[in-house]
Amino acid sequence: MPQLFFVPGPSATYFTLEDHLKSALKEQVMAISHRSQAFKDLYQNTQENLRSLLEIPAEYEIVFTTSATEVWDRMAENLVDETSLHFVHGSFSDKCAKAFQRLGKKAEIITAEAGKCAKFEGANIRQTPELIHFTLNETATGVKHPYADMQKAREQFPNALMALDVVSATPTTPIDFQQFDSVYFSVQKCFGLPSGLGVWIVSPKAIQKAEQLTADGKVYPSYHPLLELVEKSKVYQTIETPNTLNIYLLGKVAEDMLRKGVTQIRREALYKKTLLQKLFTDHPQLSPLVTEADLQSDTVAVANVEGGSAPLIEYLKSKQMVIGAGYGKAKASQIRIANFPTHSKEQIEYLVDLIMEWRI
Amino acid sequence: MPQLFFVPGPSATYFTLEDHLKSALKEQVMAISHRSQAFKDLYQNTQENLRSLLEIPAEYEIVFTTSATEVWDRMAENLVDETSLHFVHGSFSDKCAKAFQRLGKKAEIITAEAGKCAKFEGANIRQTPELIHFTLNETATGVKHPYADMQKAREQFPNALMALDVVSATPTTPIDFQQFDSVYFSVQKCFGLPSGLGVWIVSPKAIQKAEQLTADGKVYPSYHPLLELVEKSKVYQTIETPNTLNIYLLGKVAEDMLRKGVTQIRREALYKKTLLQKLFTDHPQLSPLVTEADLQSDTVAVANVEGGSAPLIEYLKSKQMVIGAGYGKAKASQIRIANFPTHSKEQIEYLVDLIMEWRI
Repeated sequence: MPQLFFVPGPSATYFTLEDHLKSALKEQVMAISHRSQAFKDLYQNTQENLRSLLEIPAEYEIVFTTSATEVWDRMAENLVDETSLHFVHGSFSDKCAKAFQRLGKKAEIITAEAGKCAKFEGANIRQTPELIHFTLNETATGVKHPYADMQKAREQFPNALMALDVVSATPTTPIDFQQFDSVYFSVQKCFGLPSGLGVWIVSPKAIQKAEQLTADGKVYPSYHPLLELVEKSKVYQTIETPNTLNIYLLGKVAEDMLRKGVTQIRREALYKKTLLQKLFTDHPQLSPLVTEADLQSDTVAVANVEGGSAPLIEYLKSKQMVIGAGYGKAKASQIRIANFPTHSKEQIEYLVDLIMEWRI
Repeated sequence: MPQLFFVPGPSATYFTLEDHLKSALKEQVMAISHRSQAFKDLYQNTQENLRSLLEIPAEYEIVFTTSATEVWDRMAENLVDETSLHFVHGSFSDKCAKAFQRLGKKAEIITAEAGKCAKFEGANIRQTPELIHFTLNETATGVKHPYADMQKAREQFPNALMALDVVSATPTTPIDFQQFDSVYFSVQKCFGLPSGLGVWIVSPKAIQKAEQLTADGKVYPSYHPLLELVEKSKVYQTIETPNTLNIYLLGKVAEDMLRKGVTQIRREALYKKTLLQKLFTDHPQLSPLVTEADLQSDTVAVANVEGGSAPLIEYLKSKQMVIGAGYGKAKASQIRIANFPTHSKEQIEYLVDLIMEWRI
């Protein structure tokens, strides 16, 4: 019997995926050369659908990487000479900051306790950052970083590049791209696609910085330098033979989402989020990890479970419903529930009803 | 109407692919967490099938990268401090050598003219290499490097790591892994899978070298260091969320090939290779690029076309048969035809008949 996956990524696949896989076979997407016109057309279609769906400005470039994890390295290599600033409220924002440190950058880290947001306001910043990294939606803790706080950082450091991790947020949480220079996500979260593809969107200011660092001989010459990724992308090409199937599927799902309307997707997400947060407040053995409403993620709901999360996870599994455990150290004490576009209102309602009936 | 792809990768997908995609949907392979037991089981199954099919020794480690192109960087970063030696008889072996140079290594290059093999025997080697890189099957020119020549290099430089590009050769051309330390391929060639996955097989000697370089602080600290790839792989895990679908599909196709028998695959390849090389000799407007029989690739046949390759390629396209143009500078003057396991004897016979009927 099929299971319903509410783990925050990989998660349930988008409900149209099966049809698109059939089309991919029919259109022989997996057999075409990545240097053919058929590939270029496919790539262009995906770029254009993404640009429409996410309202990406025309002067911003969209490139494909192999994962969001790869983007951490590529940002550190291509966009920073010495200094960066990171706001860490969970394992993923922490891993990003550590990637910059590992690659020799002076990455200053502002941290918050679990369930709180590491904010710029009130933080004691010791160095002038070349790049400021925010995590819009921390998948480990379900914390959303408010845009108003990022705005303050931008005002204080107008020369810094603004980087935004939207891995599990987009397209549900809106993004004003004009305020950011480096925005990235992976496709196995809200887009409900097979994993193995990252999407990195860069502003002209980010490209200028990469050009300057390249001219100064300061960019690590990997096989995926930003400037070459951009140059290839402009002619709908890639450096190596890419994950063509996923690029195709992303274009198709973006088209489905455009047809449904991103406003509708966001409206439904808000309804489902409200149900989940109400559940965490109402259920006697659950409590929300994130208590401040404006910090609660639109797409990942995290709760503490009295007595540990394993019995609840097992109970749901017996009903063919798979939710996530807490991340890392919180594995045994928390649950995480994804509220992605493919998770219908009815599915979340049913899940909430099941959990409300449960007692240890 | 579907086309039949004989381009040397991406090429026709393996004939069982559609069934395995259906199983992947049914088994919810694309929805499971990459930290789950279901993923570990899937990963282990693929590893074990590959180990059986390719007869990989138990003490060798198998890790997954995002492409063979990535492996070039990872070899230069993890296996070489200063010096490497490369035998270049086409664009891909050349790109590999250039990757080592780009990353600051003293990569000595021995080149050959088109259609010939850059051999160790008779070459004037100026430096002692830490790693010697061979390309078993140069996809750009269809040149096979004879093992006997590699053996001479091994004897002269017993301390060097022996690296072997088998991108478009495996599993058709046999490999004696005990003679090599770093062997890699991508899955969109002989395995007939969607692109987006590289497979890298390393010996204990290669791991020891990476350990020594790591201890000396000489390994570039990317997100994919060899030692961490190996450590994760031992527990059937990956560093980032990987291309789970492709890892699954590779395991399934390896199983199909085990059932068919690798001996049978090799026997058929030899028959098809003979047909293609005979065609190149018999047809008045074609001539084989590789004239020495022991240098002719088992899987990629390349011919010069009198008057240019475009008319022949177009003629075949009108018959729904897609063959490859020459690579790079040879695009307009040559054709390349893949002879991969999914290309049946009947398909190659039909292709050969069609080409024999063709005149400019």
